[in-house]
Amino acid sequence: MSEQVTSPTEAYPPGAAFIDGRFAEIADAKISVLDWGFLRSDATYDVVHVWKGRFFRLDSHLDRFMASAEKLRMNLPYGRAQIAEILAQLVERTGFEDAYVEMIVTRGVSPTFSRDPRDAINRFIAFAIPFGWILKPEEREKGLAIAVSEIPRIQPESVDPTVKNYHWLDLVMGMFDAYEQGARTCLLSDGQGNVTEGPGFNIFVVKDGKVSTPQRGVLHGITRQASMLLLEELQVPISERPVSLAELHDADEVFATSTAGGVMPVTSIGAHTVATGKPGAITNRLIEAYWAAHTRGDGWSVPVADVSRGQLDLA
Amino acid sequence: MSEQVTSPTEAYPPGAAFIDGRFAEIADAKISVLDWGFLRSDATYDVVHVWKGRFFRLDSHLDRFMASAEKLRMNLPYGRAQIAEILAQLVERTGFEDAYVEMIVTRGVSPTFSRDPRDAINRFIAFAIPFGWILKPEEREKGLAIAVSEIPRIQPESVDPTVKNYHWLDLVMGMFDAYEQGARTCLLSDGQGNVTEGPGFNIFVVKDGKVSTPQRGVLHGITRQASMLLLEELQVPISERPVSLAELHDADEVFATSTAGGVMPVTSIGAHTVATGKPGAITNRLIEAYWAAHTRGDGWSVPVADVSRGQLDLA
Repeated sequence: MSEQVTSPTEAYPPGAAFIDGRFAEIADAKISVLDWGFLRSDATYDVVHVWKGRFFRLDSHLDRFMASAEKLRMNLPYGRAQIAEILAQLVERTGFEDAYVEMIVTRGVSPTFSRDPRDAINRFIAFAIPFGWILKPEEREKGLAIAVSEIPRIQPESVDPTVKNYHWLDLVMGMFDAYEQGARTCLLSDGQGNVTEGPGFNIFVVKDGKVSTPQRGVLHGITRQASMLLLEELQVPISERPVSLAELHDADEVFATSTAGGVMPVTSIGAHTVATGKPGAITNRLIEAYWAAHTRGDGWSVPVADVSRGQLDLA
Repeated sequence: MSEQVTSPTEAYPPGAAFIDGRFAEIADAKISVLDWGFLRSDATYDVVHVWKGRFFRLDSHLDRFMASAEKLRMNLPYGRAQIAEILAQLVERTGFEDAYVEMIVTRGVSPTFSRDPRDAINRFIAFAIPFGWILKPEEREKGLAIAVSEIPRIQPESVDPTVKNYHWLDLVMGMFDAYEQGARTCLLSDGQGNVTEGPGFNIFVVKDGKVSTPQRGVLHGITRQASMLLLEELQVPISERPVSLAELHDADEVFATSTAGGVMPVTSIGAHTVATGKPGAITNRLIEAYWAAHTRGDGWSVPVADVSRGQLDLA
C-alpha cells in the first residue's frame, strides 16, 4: 500500500460566490463538512436566472425562498432586499448577460456541537454561474427523451416538496434507470400510478387542447407557475390535478419546465414516442411566450442594475 | 441597508480530517458548494467509533460503507485497507482514546459541469472528532424521552435506508415536533402504523421477555446488529419484524441503539411512561454486554494501532 494518494481533479465554472458574509471566488465557496446542510441535507435553496441582463421572476423566487426558510424554522441573516442586492451584485461581478443564480440557507453548525438544530447558526450562501440548460436551444426540435423510473418520488408527507430541497437520491438513482433506457433524464411517479416530477423540472401533458400538470407531491416551480400564467394569457385551458402515467403516454404533447432551460418539449418517454415525435403546437406557442416574457416588466423581469443599488456594506 | 454584514461564528470541535487526498485540520475540511454531495445530497457515509483505543465493529462498518458506495454506483478512490488505515491514522493524529470516526463518499463534481452523475469524480472524506452521545452515561438511569412525530420516514422504495444517507429533513422536522412534546428526540413511523427509526438510532421493544425490532424501512445499524448478536448470546429471543405503534406503547421495555451512545433506555414516549419509567432488566443486561464487547477480539474490536501500519504514502 505504497502508491501515492493524489487529490481528485478540481474544476470550477466561471462565476462568483457569496459566503460567510463575503463575496468570494467560486473555487473558494466551500462549506464545512460538519455543516448540517451537508450532514443532514438540512437546507433549502432557490435558483433564479438572469437573461439578457434581467432577472426573470425574481420576486417569485424570493417569495418562495423566504417561505421555505421559514417552514424549516431557519433564520436568514439577511432581509429580502439585502438578498436581492447580494444576488444582483454577484451577477455584476461575473459580467454575465445570462446567468444561473442560486441562493441557499443551511442549518449550519452548533457552536456547542449539540445535536439540536435549534442551536445551529444558519448559513446563507449564494453563487452565480453561467446559465445552464437541461435541453439546449439547438436540441429543442429533437426534444427531450425521458424515461419513467420504477423509483417513486419521496412522498410529500415525509419531505415537503414545496420547500425546494436537496433530497435527490431518488431522482439521481432514477437518472441511472433512465440512462439504461436510453433516455436523457427521468420522471418519477408517486408510486400510485401518477406522474410527479423529474430532476429539476415539472411536467405538463396536453390532450385535446387542454393542458394539465400535477399539483401534489411536486415542487411548485417558478417556471411551472410562469407557464400556467402564460397559458391563461394564450387562452389555453390549464388545470392542476393528478396526472396518471396512462395520460402521460396518451398525451398529444408533453413538455417539461425548469429554470434550467425554460419550457422543453418532451418527444419520447422510454420506448414510447409522444404523438409525432415533434414538439407540439401548444408547446411551441408557450416557448415563444416564455422567452418573450423575459423583456416584460410588471413582475416578469427586472434589470440586474435596478436591483443592485450598491448600498450594501459588505466586507 | 448600511449595516455591516458579518461572518457567522465558526466553531469546530477538536479532531482531524482527511479530504482531497490529504490530512487536514477539521477547520479546513470543506467541500465545494457545487459538490453534488451537497447540492443533491448524493452521498453515503458511515460512522465507526473508537473506545479506549480500539475500533468497535470496524469490519461491519467498512462492509456497509463499501456496499453503500457500490449501490450508489460510486467509485471509491481508495481500497478497503487504505480506508481503514486512513481512519486509524486520523485517530492517532487526534490522540483521542474515544472517538467518532466518519467516512464519506460524495458524487463530487463534473469537470464538464454536465448534469450527469456518471461524469462526476467521486470524493472521499473522513474525519475523527470526540466521541458523541445521544444520551450521556450519567443520564442513563433517567433514560431517553422520545416522541413519535406525525411525519412518516422517507419510504424505502424512494431512498434505500440500508444505504446510510443524509436525507434527514423528515427526521429534523420530526425533532422540532418532539421538542414541542417536551421530548429529547423523535421516532418516525412508516405512515402505516409501524415504528421505523429516529435521528441516528434504531428502536427495540421488549414484551414478555421477547425483543423485537423493525426490519423494513430502517437503517440496518451496526449497533442494532451488535445488539441482536449479544441478545442471542444472552439467550434472549430477538426477532426482526414489523413493530406497531401500539406495541411500542404496550412494551415492557424500549431501547434505542446508535453508534452515538450505544444502547439507550427509552423511558418515555410523548406523554406515555414506558412501564415503570426506569431502564428495564433486559436493557440493562444488554448495555453491560455491549460495553464489555468493546474489549473483545474476534471481529468485535481491534486496537487502532493494529490497523494503522504507517505504510500509506500520503501527502
